[in-house]
Amino acid sequence: MQITSPTIILDKKKCHHNIFLMAQKARAHNLIFRPHFKTHQSAIIGQWFRDFGVDKISVSSVEMAAYFVKNGWDDITIAFVFNILETQKLNDIAKIAKINILVDSIETIFYLDKHISENIGVFIKIDLGNKRTGVEYDSIVNISTLIDQLSKSKNLTFKGFIGHSGNSYKSKNKEEILSVHQNSLEKIKQLRSIYISKYPDIIFSIGDTPTNTVADDFTNIDEIRPGNFVFNDVKQVNMGVCSYEDVAIIVACPIVSKHSRRNEIIVYCGAIHLSKDFVIGKNGERLYGKVVFLNENGWTNPVDDVYVSELYQEHGVIKASHSFLFKAKIGDLIGIMPIHSCLTVSALKKYQTTDGDVIGTF
Amino acid sequence: MQITSPTIILDKKKCHHNIFLMAQKARAHNLIFRPHFKTHQSAIIGQWFRDFGVDKISVSSVEMAAYFVKNGWDDITIAFVFNILETQKLNDIAKIAKINILVDSIETIFYLDKHISENIGVFIKIDLGNKRTGVEYDSIVNISTLIDQLSKSKNLTFKGFIGHSGNSYKSKNKEEILSVHQNSLEKIKQLRSIYISKYPDIIFSIGDTPTNTVADDFTNIDEIRPGNFVFNDVKQVNMGVCSYEDVAIIVACPIVSKHSRRNEIIVYCGAIHLSKDFVIGKNGERLYGKVVFLNENGWTNPVDDVYVSELYQEHGVIKASHSFLFKAKIGDLIGIMPIHSCLTVSALKKYQTTDGDVIGTF
Repeated sequence: MQITSPTIILDKKKCHHNIFLMAQKARAHNLIFRPHFKTHQSAIIGQWFRDFGVDKISVSSVEMAAYFVKNGWDDITIAFVFNILETQKLNDIAKIAKINILVDSIETIFYLDKHISENIGVFIKIDLGNKRTGVEYDSIVNISTLIDQLSKSKNLTFKGFIGHSGNSYKSKNKEEILSVHQNSLEKIKQLRSIYISKYPDIIFSIGDTPTNTVADDFTNIDEIRPGNFVFNDVKQVNMGVCSYEDVAIIVACPIVSKHSRRNEIIVYCGAIHLSKDFVIGKNGERLYGKVVFLNENGWTNPVDDVYVSELYQEHGVIKASHSFLFKAKIGDLIGIMPIHSCLTVSALKKYQTTDGDVIGTF
Repeated sequence: MQITSPTIILDKKKCHHNIFLMAQKARAHNLIFRPHFKTHQSAIIGQWFRDFGVDKISVSSVEMAAYFVKNGWDDITIAFVFNILETQKLNDIAKIAKINILVDSIETIFYLDKHISENIGVFIKIDLGNKRTGVEYDSIVNISTLIDQLSKSKNLTFKGFIGHSGNSYKSKNKEEILSVHQNSLEKIKQLRSIYISKYPDIIFSIGDTPTNTVADDFTNIDEIRPGNFVFNDVKQVNMGVCSYEDVAIIVACPIVSKHSRRNEIIVYCGAIHLSKDFVIGKNGERLYGKVVFLNENGWTNPVDDVYVSELYQEHGVIKASHSFLFKAKIGDLIGIMPIHSCLTVSALKKYQTTDGDVIGTF
């Protein structure tokens, strides 16, 4: 299909390889592999995971869970502290599939206990240091109160503890990621020592691409839930999690205007396509994307010193060298490697593979 | 309709009043009012403009033009330097409606001249100081070359000059906005003095909510194309363009988690709902949204010192006072006033009015 507007290009081989590596790692460490599907959000890409033995998934909303249930998945963790306003929708999908949710408050358990009619697996969300949601790992009184309340509930089953070391995304390199991971392992070790004898079947689940990719020690961990690794992005490369060759998507976009006096190219590709996540460049500048050339096999590695410097609603500004300006013509398509692939997919909601297939999302 | 997930709430009265004020201003200054529909992106809201005599509109993409053509609009400016890869789509809509486009390069004119089969109005995009797209206003050789080429074309008609003082968005107050506007007026005055005698029918068009709202001098201007004013947002309030009472949309979102030790509330409302635009607060902090209470009539003004401090894919972190934490309960809906309403609408693509009606977008 002829590309005329901003379109995600997906390299299926790279994507398969990313899935293979993570599935292999999970198996080597005897971990349940429950990938987070919020990154690709696609039933078709979801099927690719089946070849690697995946039959359990994570999603980030009740609606996304409903979409994957409709597409044949029957063991889903909604990896977001549960929003009680969606209890009816939860009841609906739990009639057909095995659903786990996350809680971090007694209010939510009280409410669900009264209003839920299906059996639901419940993980207690633990704050492993990310400081977003979750009970502090050492708030033993709080945690025990939640477990006690779950134990009394007819339809809610205590499944274990779940954490997300999202703070790993603040790392500058592998060492910092490993330090975040070690810190999480310490916390989980303590939790496990307290609860495992009374609840021998509970599981300890962690997730985030940086630690899951870089770490080799998964002591006391039963399950991993990475998501971003399926595509990777500039942020992962910057942290040393992967290389540019491992990034499986770019956004193809038309060049619409050139400004040689200020070394800038304007592309049709803005905040509504890429989202506005950025990384900080070596001179303190904001980078909203790296720039690649498209070719027969997909795309090149990013061009040195050429990057997306500003994003408006539909416009992207590319800071370019003179040689890049010379090569790039109005009406050409160039590629932008996204800073954050999850948000880019969420914005564009569609892929074209390097083989020319079109794949939709949730 | 019961709200259970992030949903834009639209106050129709405030929106009507915003349209009324801008339409009245355009009439008072004898300006063509060609509002930019990229902010609301909705056929139904578009109809509200008809009551104020609007029959010409601006849009930001060829696809958005096609949507509004299908919904009865027949005089549309695609206010984005034309992307020649969409020439076929342009031909298709220009068969049914009067379409104007923007160009800033001779390459684009050459290409269109060969490939366009319908009559298209062409504005030369002038850079009024925004440094994004457009020919520099004093590049008289360039501008004259573009005009000459247009004059030779069978299907392309030179319509005039168009500018967008997007740099007004960097202003801190009305005085700075007015200074941006005066600067634009100077440039337009010079262009007019050069070209109006040879091309007496051309028009000079400007657009952007800050200058169009604040300015009272529209000497040498024929047309305005503001967009954001239809809803406004925190950014406009911060620049002194309007007050919080003039902001016509907020996003209702469920509270899912509370953290009293660090004075934080977590809501189901993230980057995929609000986008990631921010303003800088008085202590240098990033504000991704202001927080309001919902009530029978819509919502309150923003609560002092309570704001969205971080956005993840689906999570929003709200920095709250203790009194706010005390009032806000898990399962409550609260409102977030967006920093940038255009991007929020583009992300959520649907409204619920304070009267309970649901309105779709493009």
